[in-house]
Amino acid sequence: MSSLHGTAASNGISIGKAFVLQEPNIVIEEKNIEQPERELEHFKHAINLAVKDLERIKTHTEEQLGASHAKIFEAHLMVLQDPELINAVKAQIEGQKINAEKAMNDVANQYINIFENMNNSYMKERAADIRDVSKRVIAYLLGEKIAGTSDITEEVILIAHDLLPSDTAQLNRNLVKGIVTDIGGRTSHSAIIARSMEIPAVVGTSSSTEQIEAGMMIIVDGSTGEVIVDPDEETLATYKKKKEALDERKSQLKSLVNEKSISKDGKQVELAANIGSPKDLEAVIKNGAEGVGLFRTEFLYMDRSSLPTENEQYEAYSAVLEKLEGKPVVIRTLDIGGDKDLPYLDLPKELNPFLGFRAIRLCLERDDIFRTQLRALLRASTHGQLKIMFPMIATIEEFRQAKQLLEEERQSLIDEGVSVNDSIEIGIMVEIPSTAMIADLFAEEVDFFSIGTNDLIQYTLAADRMNEHVSYLYQPYHPAILRLIDRVIKAAHNKGKWVGMCGEMAGDEKAIPILLGLGLDEFSMSASSILEARKLINELSYEKLKELTPEILKKQTSDEVYLFVERLLKDGDITQ
Amino acid sequence: MSSLHGTAASNGISIGKAFVLQEPNIVIEEKNIEQPERELEHFKHAINLAVKDLERIKTHTEEQLGASHAKIFEAHLMVLQDPELINAVKAQIEGQKINAEKAMNDVANQYINIFENMNNSYMKERAADIRDVSKRVIAYLLGEKIAGTSDITEEVILIAHDLLPSDTAQLNRNLVKGIVTDIGGRTSHSAIIARSMEIPAVVGTSSSTEQIEAGMMIIVDGSTGEVIVDPDEETLATYKKKKEALDERKSQLKSLVNEKSISKDGKQVELAANIGSPKDLEAVIKNGAEGVGLFRTEFLYMDRSSLPTENEQYEAYSAVLEKLEGKPVVIRTLDIGGDKDLPYLDLPKELNPFLGFRAIRLCLERDDIFRTQLRALLRASTHGQLKIMFPMIATIEEFRQAKQLLEEERQSLIDEGVSVNDSIEIGIMVEIPSTAMIADLFAEEVDFFSIGTNDLIQYTLAADRMNEHVSYLYQPYHPAILRLIDRVIKAAHNKGKWVGMCGEMAGDEKAIPILLGLGLDEFSMSASSILEARKLINELSYEKLKELTPEILKKQTSDEVYLFVERLLKDGDITQ
Repeated sequence: MSSLHGTAASNGISIGKAFVLQEPNIVIEEKNIEQPERELEHFKHAINLAVKDLERIKTHTEEQLGASHAKIFEAHLMVLQDPELINAVKAQIEGQKINAEKAMNDVANQYINIFENMNNSYMKERAADIRDVSKRVIAYLLGEKIAGTSDITEEVILIAHDLLPSDTAQLNRNLVKGIVTDIGGRTSHSAIIARSMEIPAVVGTSSSTEQIEAGMMIIVDGSTGEVIVDPDEETLATYKKKKEALDERKSQLKSLVNEKSISKDGKQVELAANIGSPKDLEAVIKNGAEGVGLFRTEFLYMDRSSLPTENEQYEAYSAVLEKLEGKPVVIRTLDIGGDKDLPYLDLPKELNPFLGFRAIRLCLERDDIFRTQLRALLRASTHGQLKIMFPMIATIEEFRQAKQLLEEERQSLIDEGVSVNDSIEIGIMVEIPSTAMIADLFAEEVDFFSIGTNDLIQYTLAADRMNEHVSYLYQPYHPAILRLIDRVIKAAHNKGKWVGMCGEMAGDEKAIPILLGLGLDEFSMSASSILEARKLINELSYEKLKELTPEILKKQTSDEVYLFVERLLKDGDITQ
Repeated sequence: MSSLHGTAASNGISIGKAFVLQEPNIVIEEKNIEQPERELEHFKHAINLAVKDLERIKTHTEEQLGASHAKIFEAHLMVLQDPELINAVKAQIEGQKINAEKAMNDVANQYINIFENMNNSYMKERAADIRDVSKRVIAYLLGEKIAGTSDITEEVILIAHDLLPSDTAQLNRNLVKGIVTDIGGRTSHSAIIARSMEIPAVVGTSSSTEQIEAGMMIIVDGSTGEVIVDPDEETLATYKKKKEALDERKSQLKSLVNEKSISKDGKQVELAANIGSPKDLEAVIKNGAEGVGLFRTEFLYMDRSSLPTENEQYEAYSAVLEKLEGKPVVIRTLDIGGDKDLPYLDLPKELNPFLGFRAIRLCLERDDIFRTQLRALLRASTHGQLKIMFPMIATIEEFRQAKQLLEEERQSLIDEGVSVNDSIEIGIMVEIPSTAMIADLFAEEVDFFSIGTNDLIQYTLAADRMNEHVSYLYQPYHPAILRLIDRVIKAAHNKGKWVGMCGEMAGDEKAIPILLGLGLDEFSMSASSILEARKLINELSYEKLKELTPEILKKQTSDEVYLFVERLLKDGDITQ
């Protein structure tokens, strides 16, 4: 028995056999080939195997996740069928009498260099495709197997260095019972996917793929970050018991689906869900969300080659509003640019994309794109309780401009005889420190605020949370963050406006008591966190937390705040 | 007569003849060559001319600016003498019978691709060297002349698309009387250099190099951003008069060199200078600075191939402290990383370098580098009034760690019998929003704050000021910025600590009245701005400004604040 420790990324316990998604160990040596004809055969054979591989993955993805997710594999197949590339490899094998893997690698690198040097992000993505495909072909040439998540045919614990989007696209949630990775933090792609699929996960263990072999018995504790390899019987029994208790708790939580989110002493708040597309609605309903606190609209613009039409958008927004049956739905206007690129828009390449031309900044400049979205939203507004939210607002002028465009489109629709809901609330994301600092001034003009903690923390501490060298500065409990949140809530309440939160923090067990005490009105989180949050809030005393707030805001460090709340929860001071 | 408008980048009026630093118009066509021998001769000749060019530039730079600035041209010469590159070009000319410029271009691009794809920033810089050098050779091959700033032999107004560091390295401040560029803002390299050399400049005119021809008469008004081309006699006379008035004012200002910086009603502040190296001290003394508010130590680490030794640093710090004769000198510890790379440290490449692994974050991890600097500072401390400042502090833990390392090195020096000043003040830069938000907590532990507005504004508004798409969000007068400054000053004064400012804002005419009213203690700026600032402060009423502060902090937008202060200055309300 041995154990590994990582970041607790998705709650729950899983016990099962390891499936190790291992990168093939590819070493390419140049060899002189005496019989180029045989080498050409060898190459052709590898291509055929790779084609079959990809066709299988593509079909599987189409069936499981739909055609849009399968598009990437079509692109990969096209690379394998590109005569220019294939003939270049053949010419090298024949002309220079070198081995196929060396020839394939050289030719692929030439293409990759060319594509990567193009000032066009669509072409740059082609470089990634070629890299993936050539890796697959070379693995076949060397007789190394690329294990894919699509190879999983029984219940397993998935062990991987990291999960790429193409890995998760093929992931079968009925078979993958747990996830363990070497790298990544709580907000990495792997962690987010695990939480959204409700699969227990531990990420960032450093060495899981080295220490774990296929078939080993594994226990994953996604709440503590513990991974136990080859457990002895006693440990196994302990965890089985723990798992049963958790399953029991899960069914308890299910009983809260239709309950209110109300503190022990009667303070009611709203627990809403963050969604990325209408696909996520099933989990929203299942987990008893009281609304949608953040509907990200980027999915409409991604994985395609041109802008979505007004009608396409109208359909999507209407569908969500209808499904929510009159519960509030906060739809955020397009937050693209920065690190989220749209190849067909040809956005500028930036030195610091997180501090760049994105979201409302881009929408105010490209108002053609923005007006189309606003029209679609306005038209959909009669299908439910729509609230419109602008992202990345840093100045009052930006909000006024955005609102002006909305009013123009509203008037133009009315002139066209289209009916529009006349009580749509208009709010902003508070994710830029300047906006939190002047929330009192904004509160006179907006209908609501939603605090986006992921970005707010990044900017307030000037640290890119995706950068492992500074991710320790991603500190939700930093007193500066709590004080900014306090400012925003006070400013809003002074003017009778409500405040939500739609960052990771809103679903965090240690943050919820603080936020409740600060007076937050709406908590929007992954659907899977809602029942846990409701249970916690049901047990908390709002008045006691409110009294403790000044003390919390005077703590000196993030750690002090965390330990203080941890102690309060443990001692039951705030739950009595 | 015509006129252009740009950003006023360096005050003053200049009148003179245009020297246009124009990019050669290079179009490379592939041609079939019948006599490769002649083409080879042609190529050899161009190389010789380029070598002579570079040797001249190198000698000139060595004489004017010292050996360290000339190193880049040594690297360029090495490229021209690299047999592998030269022979590859020759082989293409002979083998494929193509023209030399096409061959040179192809070979250079191959090298550039290879270097640019290396995961090592030193090698990536080599790509830039090869690009520069091949451009020079190709220009000779095509008979196009590259005009360099070193070609200037008479008094001129320099017109350029942009000034590269290699252009400014060769710039003769006795001959270049004014600078006009097509691109860049107030904080671009061109603008900063112009201010530090006290050369009137207008940047970002978009089309100066298109509209202005060599030899045209030009008027540059670096205070308004106006550039007049081919002025009529009346205009010329008007500007000559203005220039005389300015020269007159300049001599008035000179009379303030030894005066105090004190408001009309007796509030005294300190006007200090920002310096980048001991070379800048002459201007500091000449302009009557009362100290150095920011000594950037990066110069010691740049343009070299290894870390500076403790002794080298000791010499530099001691020299500055001695030259200031007991006046305060705030030395900032190393702020490298992010966009400021040191090739020999092999720092990670980052997606968002401004939110990355830099300054104190890097120093706490690489404490070998940091301890060496701290020892050098401590040893130099007996030569004057040293204050040590840590950059990019975001949490109290970081400050405590940095101070702990300083204390350890102090103790170790004392144990070695080295004498150390025992009254060194230890402070921090306030340039990250989190630190401004908890300035009250920091004030209990630091001796002083210095507000770094350049970064503070970037982070508070989440906008990279070097990114032209969002540079409009670089708003020093944004109410959020003024409120953060207010918080910091109040927090510091509550604990009896002083607050300085060392960003661009401290020298800004419209910002100075606000900052004085807020109670800022020390204003640190380009030496060239000090006398203007002193004159302004001498005329202001502190009490009136203090009274107006709450009104200013309630303005809704940056523009409202700016216009309000502009009107106050114009109406004389705050100068009576």
